[in-house]
Amino acid sequence: MKRYDHVQMGVDYYPEHWDESMWEPDIKLMKETGVKVVRVAEFAWSRLEPTEGNYQFEWLDRALDLFHQYDLQVVMGTPTATPPRWLTTKFPDVLPVFANGEIFHPGVRGHRCYNSTSLREYGSRIILRLAERYSEHPAVIGWQTDNEFGMLDCHCDACNTAFRAWVQAKYGTLAEVNAEWGTVVWSGEYSDWNELTVPLGGSPHQNPSFLLDFQRFQWDSVVAFQTAQINILRMICPEHFITHNFHSYPQRLDMYAVGADLDVAAFDYYPNTSPTKQETTPYSGALSLDVTRGIKRQNFWIMEQLSGSPGCWMPMWRTPYPGLIRAYAWQAIARGADTVVHFRWRSATSGAEQFWHGLIDHSNVPGRRLAEFTQLCHEVNGLSGKLQGTMLKNEVAILHSHEEKAALDIQPQAEGFDYYENIKQIHRAVTKLGMGCDVIDLRQPLDGYKVVIAPNLYLLDEEIVRNLEDFALAGGTLLITNRSGVKNINNIAVMQPLPGQLSYCTGVEVLEYDPIGVETHVIVDAEGNPYECTQWCDILRPVVAQPIAWYGDDFYRGTPAVTVNSFGKGQVYYFGTHAEEQYWSVLLENLAKEKGLLCFAGLPNGVQASVRTGDQGSFLFLLNLSRESVIVPLPREYSSLLDNKIRSGELQLEPYGVEVLEI
Amino acid sequence: MKRYDHVQMGVDYYPEHWDESMWEPDIKLMKETGVKVVRVAEFAWSRLEPTEGNYQFEWLDRALDLFHQYDLQVVMGTPTATPPRWLTTKFPDVLPVFANGEIFHPGVRGHRCYNSTSLREYGSRIILRLAERYSEHPAVIGWQTDNEFGMLDCHCDACNTAFRAWVQAKYGTLAEVNAEWGTVVWSGEYSDWNELTVPLGGSPHQNPSFLLDFQRFQWDSVVAFQTAQINILRMICPEHFITHNFHSYPQRLDMYAVGADLDVAAFDYYPNTSPTKQETTPYSGALSLDVTRGIKRQNFWIMEQLSGSPGCWMPMWRTPYPGLIRAYAWQAIARGADTVVHFRWRSATSGAEQFWHGLIDHSNVPGRRLAEFTQLCHEVNGLSGKLQGTMLKNEVAILHSHEEKAALDIQPQAEGFDYYENIKQIHRAVTKLGMGCDVIDLRQPLDGYKVVIAPNLYLLDEEIVRNLEDFALAGGTLLITNRSGVKNINNIAVMQPLPGQLSYCTGVEVLEYDPIGVETHVIVDAEGNPYECTQWCDILRPVVAQPIAWYGDDFYRGTPAVTVNSFGKGQVYYFGTHAEEQYWSVLLENLAKEKGLLCFAGLPNGVQASVRTGDQGSFLFLLNLSRESVIVPLPREYSSLLDNKIRSGELQLEPYGVEVLEI
Amino acid sequence: MKRYDHVQMGVDYYPEHWDESMWEPDIKLMKETGVKVVRVAEFAWSRLEPTEGNYQFEWLDRALDLFHQYDLQVVMGTPTATPPRWLTTKFPDVLPVFANGEIFHPGVRGHRCYNSTSLREYGSRIILRLAERYSEHPAVIGWQTDNEFGMLDCHCDACNTAFRAWVQAKYGTLAEVNAEWGTVVWSGEYSDWNELTVPLGGSPHQNPSFLLDFQRFQWDSVVAFQTAQINILRMICPEHFITHNFHSYPQRLDMYAVGADLDVAAFDYYPNTSPTKQETTPYSGALSLDVTRGIKRQNFWIMEQLSGSPGCWMPMWRTPYPGLIRAYAWQAIARGADTVVHFRWRSATSGAEQFWHGLIDHSNVPGRRLAEFTQLCHEVNGLSGKLQGTMLKNEVAILHSHEEKAALDIQPQAEGFDYYENIKQIHRAVTKLGMGCDVIDLRQPLDGYKVVIAPNLYLLDEEIVRNLEDFALAGGTLLITNRSGVKNINNIAVMQPLPGQLSYCTGVEVLEYDPIGVETHVIVDAEGNPYECTQWCDILRPVVAQPIAWYGDDFYRGTPAVTVNSFGKGQVYYFGTHAEEQYWSVLLENLAKEKGLLCFAGLPNGVQASVRTGDQGSFLFLLNLSRESVIVPLPREYSSLLDNKIRSGELQLEPYGVEVLEI
Repeated sequence: MKRYDHVQMGVDYYPEHWDESMWEPDIKLMKETGVKVVRVAEFAWSRLEPTEGNYQFEWLDRALDLFHQYDLQVVMGTPTATPPRWLTTKFPDVLPVFANGEIFHPGVRGHRCYNSTSLREYGSRIILRLAERYSEHPAVIGWQTDNEFGMLDCHCDACNTAFRAWVQAKYGTLAEVNAEWGTVVWSGEYSDWNELTVPLGGSPHQNPSFLLDFQRFQWDSVVAFQTAQINILRMICPEHFITHNFHSYPQRLDMYAVGADLDVAAFDYYPNTSPTKQETTPYSGALSLDVTRGIKRQNFWIMEQLSGSPGCWMPMWRTPYPGLIRAYAWQAIARGADTVVHFRWRSATSGAEQFWHGLIDHSNVPGRRLAEFTQLCHEVNGLSGKLQGTMLKNEVAILHSHEEKAALDIQPQAEGFDYYENIKQIHRAVTKLGMGCDVIDLRQPLDGYKVVIAPNLYLLDEEIVRNLEDFALAGGTLLITNRSGVKNINNIAVMQPLPGQLSYCTGVEVLEYDPIGVETHVIVDAEGNPYECTQWCDILRPVVAQPIAWYGDDFYRGTPAVTVNSFGKGQVYYFGTHAEEQYWSVLLENLAKEKGLLCFAGLPNGVQASVRTGDQGSFLFLLNLSRESVIVPLPREYSSLLDNKIRSGELQLEPYGVEVLEI
Repeated sequence: MKRYDHVQMGVDYYPEHWDESMWEPDIKLMKETGVKVVRVAEFAWSRLEPTEGNYQFEWLDRALDLFHQYDLQVVMGTPTATPPRWLTTKFPDVLPVFANGEIFHPGVRGHRCYNSTSLREYGSRIILRLAERYSEHPAVIGWQTDNEFGMLDCHCDACNTAFRAWVQAKYGTLAEVNAEWGTVVWSGEYSDWNELTVPLGGSPHQNPSFLLDFQRFQWDSVVAFQTAQINILRMICPEHFITHNFHSYPQRLDMYAVGADLDVAAFDYYPNTSPTKQETTPYSGALSLDVTRGIKRQNFWIMEQLSGSPGCWMPMWRTPYPGLIRAYAWQAIARGADTVVHFRWRSATSGAEQFWHGLIDHSNVPGRRLAEFTQLCHEVNGLSGKLQGTMLKNEVAILHSHEEKAALDIQPQAEGFDYYENIKQIHRAVTKLGMGCDVIDLRQPLDGYKVVIAPNLYLLDEEIVRNLEDFALAGGTLLITNRSGVKNINNIAVMQPLPGQLSYCTGVEVLEYDPIGVETHVIVDAEGNPYECTQWCDILRPVVAQPIAWYGDDFYRGTPAVTVNSFGKGQVYYFGTHAEEQYWSVLLENLAKEKGLLCFAGLPNGVQASVRTGDQGSFLFLLNLSRESVIVPLPREYSSLLDNKIRSGELQLEPYGVEVLEI
Repeated sequence: MKRYDHVQMGVDYYPEHWDESMWEPDIKLMKETGVKVVRVAEFAWSRLEPTEGNYQFEWLDRALDLFHQYDLQVVMGTPTATPPRWLTTKFPDVLPVFANGEIFHPGVRGHRCYNSTSLREYGSRIILRLAERYSEHPAVIGWQTDNEFGMLDCHCDACNTAFRAWVQAKYGTLAEVNAEWGTVVWSGEYSDWNELTVPLGGSPHQNPSFLLDFQRFQWDSVVAFQTAQINILRMICPEHFITHNFHSYPQRLDMYAVGADLDVAAFDYYPNTSPTKQETTPYSGALSLDVTRGIKRQNFWIMEQLSGSPGCWMPMWRTPYPGLIRAYAWQAIARGADTVVHFRWRSATSGAEQFWHGLIDHSNVPGRRLAEFTQLCHEVNGLSGKLQGTMLKNEVAILHSHEEKAALDIQPQAEGFDYYENIKQIHRAVTKLGMGCDVIDLRQPLDGYKVVIAPNLYLLDEEIVRNLEDFALAGGTLLITNRSGVKNINNIAVMQPLPGQLSYCTGVEVLEYDPIGVETHVIVDAEGNPYECTQWCDILRPVVAQPIAWYGDDFYRGTPAVTVNSFGKGQVYYFGTHAEEQYWSVLLENLAKEKGLLCFAGLPNGVQASVRTGDQGSFLFLLNLSRESVIVPLPREYSSLLDNKIRSGELQLEPYGVEVLEI
């Protein structure tokens, strides 16, 4: 299989958007800029098959030949995210249907029901032909499936039938469905399979077990849709790798199942350019990158990277500050991206995304952003050899789950309670300490980690519990938070004191709880330091655990809020409340000392550190993702990969300054 | 007929939600807790008739036998609020239709068109069978019809036909319809009955006379729907009483007509647990209880009372503070509830209401809340003998009308003007003075009251006017506010100076008016004290009335804002503006002195007083509905019913403290 | 043709709303009040044709005869804005259809698809009969077409077919459509005419070129709809003038094409009565009047003028302050209104607009507002002779375009960027300087102006550019702002540096831009004075222009923000950013001195000056549109037209005071 582990830069290019006379000048300039790879064809169905069966690939042949001539490699997109008008007109079953029966008409993109047989058939046809034509093309190295999978929650007849079959396959009988979903409440019992449908219009507040399974069905539909494409590509193009470009998190998507079929995951990365978001963007971006790396627990691609101000259905964002484009590309690499493809080479002059700016403006006059990108390409190309094959080796992991998120979205727990935001807060505390952190699916093996943080384990089954217990028994430090152990995996409340199946390892019992929501309460640690808490207060009875923080408010003032339990060779923390970030920072810093975790103390706000390690050494990235110049104290001397000079003492990083040090 | 006037406690229990092995332990614990009555079966249709005509009552027999065995009485619910899936699948006409033609699909509850012939037929069938089976069961004492009637504004074909017939019955000819609705405006005249439909999609701002009659039609549909059920129950179970559980006010519902067919009204009472609502919840709750008592002008039941944090479609509320559950149950009794049934025994483990917490948590481990409820049951059982048969005898009434509210909602008068909120403000002023107050339908006889407050009498007919005039002529004090006399009963503006038909008794004429909305203006009383006013300013010409407050703002500064008129042996006040609560407090306190009204001066914030009186004496309830400890000065010695000790001087009430004194 | 240039007052009257016995007293009182003209019949279709073909004109004959008897002139409305129920029941194609397929049902007004053949046919029939019956009636002088044209964006089958034909007529082939709309983006290419539809449900963020053409199609549909009516009226009633009553701006409407077919434009003027809007209402009102005058670049009518508190679907507004009704009528006249018709004589007692108050309240007791109106009528009648034929002659123009607005609405540029609000800000600066200003269509000839301000010329074609260049070349001063020259007229981005085709005359090049949105940045002028700016920052390279202000912020601090370029005999300013009003004020005041523009310095806030000029002289209107008494310094002696006395020195204007001076 062709390699996808080069550390290199790319661009997204749509030859069909431009007069053919512009292609060669464009490609020549890409080459000069330092670009190595180009993504094409993801939305080109109407140009590749203008009418049914009328395949027109010659223009793409010419484009690919030009790329090859200039030594650029190409990733092809399968065009199924934009079914052409002849297809949707002839086969309206391609179009998704909303719960109220309205149709999602064409005109934008993503107008495709994953269960549409017409789409499956016509999509497979064109993918097969594209694969056959380009399997041997010397420029082509891989494929991107569709574009930015997401859920529209289609309610069409095909989905209805497929959902019924899915439920039947899972549960066998209606008696089992009624029992596992608890449909007896509100007389919702099914007496005939015919009565079981996808959610239809009316009140959205339906049975939560049913709603969760409907989400699982939709997730599986996406996976099945992609699998059909992958089967063709693997058969015809065994030398090509396959990826998919995930986008902004959290998505209602089983990214782990979608990723399982891929060779490499990809992410579309658009950090917010606004100075008003400067406090949060570097950290939510870092989380997105760590989430993407966690999809396959390996390095990944950026398939679309910010190149200018985005703008489309929403007003345009601020233009990227000088250095921002470069710094965020380095952030992606620092956190495990190998190839970084910028979206897009030049801004489109037509269509709804005209103002989603590329590296070059509509004027086609290269400007400040292309100059910055050119510098970036040259830097990356210079370091590519050393960085290739390096990876992040982290001692800390945060567990993430699309299922926990789905269940917690179906039934909001308390005002302000947000599963992904809770992860974000903890991840930010970790990142500010310069501590590397993986973000992985809840069901992954935990070998090799010293600390595992598992927020809001709302749904549980025995497999998850055993995995966590085994980790702690073997000496790991496990941190669990409130709203854990509440439900079985079918979204039914357990009939035992919380944290349910985690009571054993945590050594605490939740006597009752108080959903304080957006109110601010206080907890106090053993030294008497107060910290704010919100969202939720479990009133705890430590069975064998030791309290380490106590509530400072309300009728449960003085009772334990956070506990720690010795469990086997390890420890299990339980957070009865949602503590402010500072509490996490202090606790994690102490843990770092206790466990000897790698971290980088004293990072200024907006500055991030991470390390890639491989056969050729370890490389420390120090990135200033802010508009202010900062000083980072270096603990010792390092050699800079950017200019091969020695850095030591107080390292000054300019606004959006980047440093890569050999360690 | 079996009695429904015991002062006692109950719980809501859904045997069908639990494994049968749990029934006896549950019922045994209820018995020990002090519970006397249980409501069952309101949502159990799918379990009672799993498929068409396949009635399965044995499980309910066994449950009822167990209740009887433990000496608990049972109220049965008719199951029509949750038509089962086999019924809605076979007869989709059961389902309501929105104005835009979309269907309210099953999956939650309340998915029933009151005019559906299928629902009427299948509903009657199962109610008949339930009635026949349980008419002689020794545990069963009464019935609850459906659940929490409310209006979905169905627009289905059946409603369309029924509405047309309703209009025809009311007006006879289209000429009369056109005249009484004033359809000539905007060419809305009907030339054929076929053209007359329920409101359909498009602009909602339709003819207000038409919209008001459509509401009346929907109200009548609810009544007719219930009457069909009541007819069966009365025939088969003449010994059983019948109730219905109204819920949070204001409802778009003719509660008075629904209540007329009942033996006793019931209310579902969920006071807000948040400390941020502590200033308002005790008072809006008191109003709800007074409104419920006014439905039949007699004591009532609470059919669902707060037992834990509610949560469902919305985030969970705060957990009830210690004492809150008890105090609010006592508040219900203090204001005329006899039986108080707590919702629910144990939290459901499945379904959309999993987090609408019962007295016992999902864990089934009895905790703090059940302990508090147990104390409450024992207290109530201890006082039950003395309290039975006692009632509230009030000298003050506030007039309320679902029709005024409907008309004022159809045409908002001024920003911030809200009919029910206006009543709430006046009721709060009355309640803070410890003055008992009935809240009754506008058309009720007013004998026995000294003071009647009638806010916003927007729609009027001669009967209403005569009732009010007669009250004042006979010596009563009548308080009328702005936006009175504006319309005839068909929502057509009168062609005379306002307050229209009330000009005679008020002795004022509205020259013009200024809808000041949310702006704050000032009125000044005779002593020169300023008070804020909002919403509305009538510019008044006192014809024979005397001004008692004047505007302090704008071009009508110095003109009268509030007047009083001697009318027969009584007095009629007219409020040209919406004065702040403090103005009402001062005026009512003065009235209390003048008229010798019973009140309880000096109540701290959140503390409420009320008196139940009967053959065995009069009992003063003093309730601290706040989180703070307070002192209530007692005017003399009293004996406490709770511990038979003497109370006098400064009575200390703990947070959510309760006192019941013999007077 | 009968004259429509009398300076006079009128009222809107609906005889069909009132018992016939009230007609003569009403008309007699109108006559006494000083009213000269009455509008009738605009919504009377159901009364004129109660069932199909059953024309009932006798009642209208009697009403018109009465008007004639009292010497009042009448403007008739065509009744097509309210198709009667028999028509919409028999021909549902009359009703508009929303994008999601839902129908706009009758019950309010405006329920008419402009492309409905049934509406065209039945509308033409009744208009023909009305025209025939009243062409010779001595009272009738003219017609108003329909009522307040606006766009509902109908998506019915007729619109679909008509739109397809419209596109075919414009572009000829689908290849051309695909090229001109750039449909290749996202595979949106059409391969068959059948695939081309109006926008249907789903995502609204469709191809912007398609969306702009859909708006053009809807605009053209309105024009064609009106043309059909006008053709009948011109043929049958050649002596009658024709007008249409436009309403609140901005409308999505091609007012210029609608106006082209009219003899005179009319406006429905409802200035906001709230004191909280006192800072803005006088100026947004002034702009509305200037926009209306610009529709045909001649004097106009007010067809509906504020007479009391409006209220309907929204809460009622404040009642008009004493003098407000009079002052705003004078403002209309001061800015070019000849006839001012007040809406409405008396408030309706039924229908959805009951609380849209007329001059007389529901009580039919004449009050303060009718008294003020009577004074106004007498004043206007007194000055009518002098004012007749006078017009505004302005040296400054602001260019306006419904097409620019539509395109900028389709793709929001930056948060807070609003085309019409930007015009409003500039117009307010001009108006506060007492500088007369025309607001005209972008494509109008510019002869006679000294200064032309052209904000946000987003779409351009050569004709527009040549018009502007010619103006500047000939010595005019042209002010152009950012987001100009971005697109061709089909909403496709140009491939040249901005401001695109305006680069030549402005002498600047936009290197890149920063959409700062609602953030506040700073610009500094040559004297070092700072001014705030928002929305947008073009980073400019002056090619031949001279900078006159510079950015004070961000990475482009110190670079030019505003430039001026000598171009032929004139000058062209370019504003790279959206400067605060004060910057415009200073710049315009300097320009006024430089160019010798007429203005009126030192106007207090809320006071407006304007001049009407004709054969009989020039008349200066000074209007205090505020609730405060103010002093206006007069530069010399003037004679007042209101009392023929001399005014000089410090002129005191009472709240809502009016002065008309001979100059």
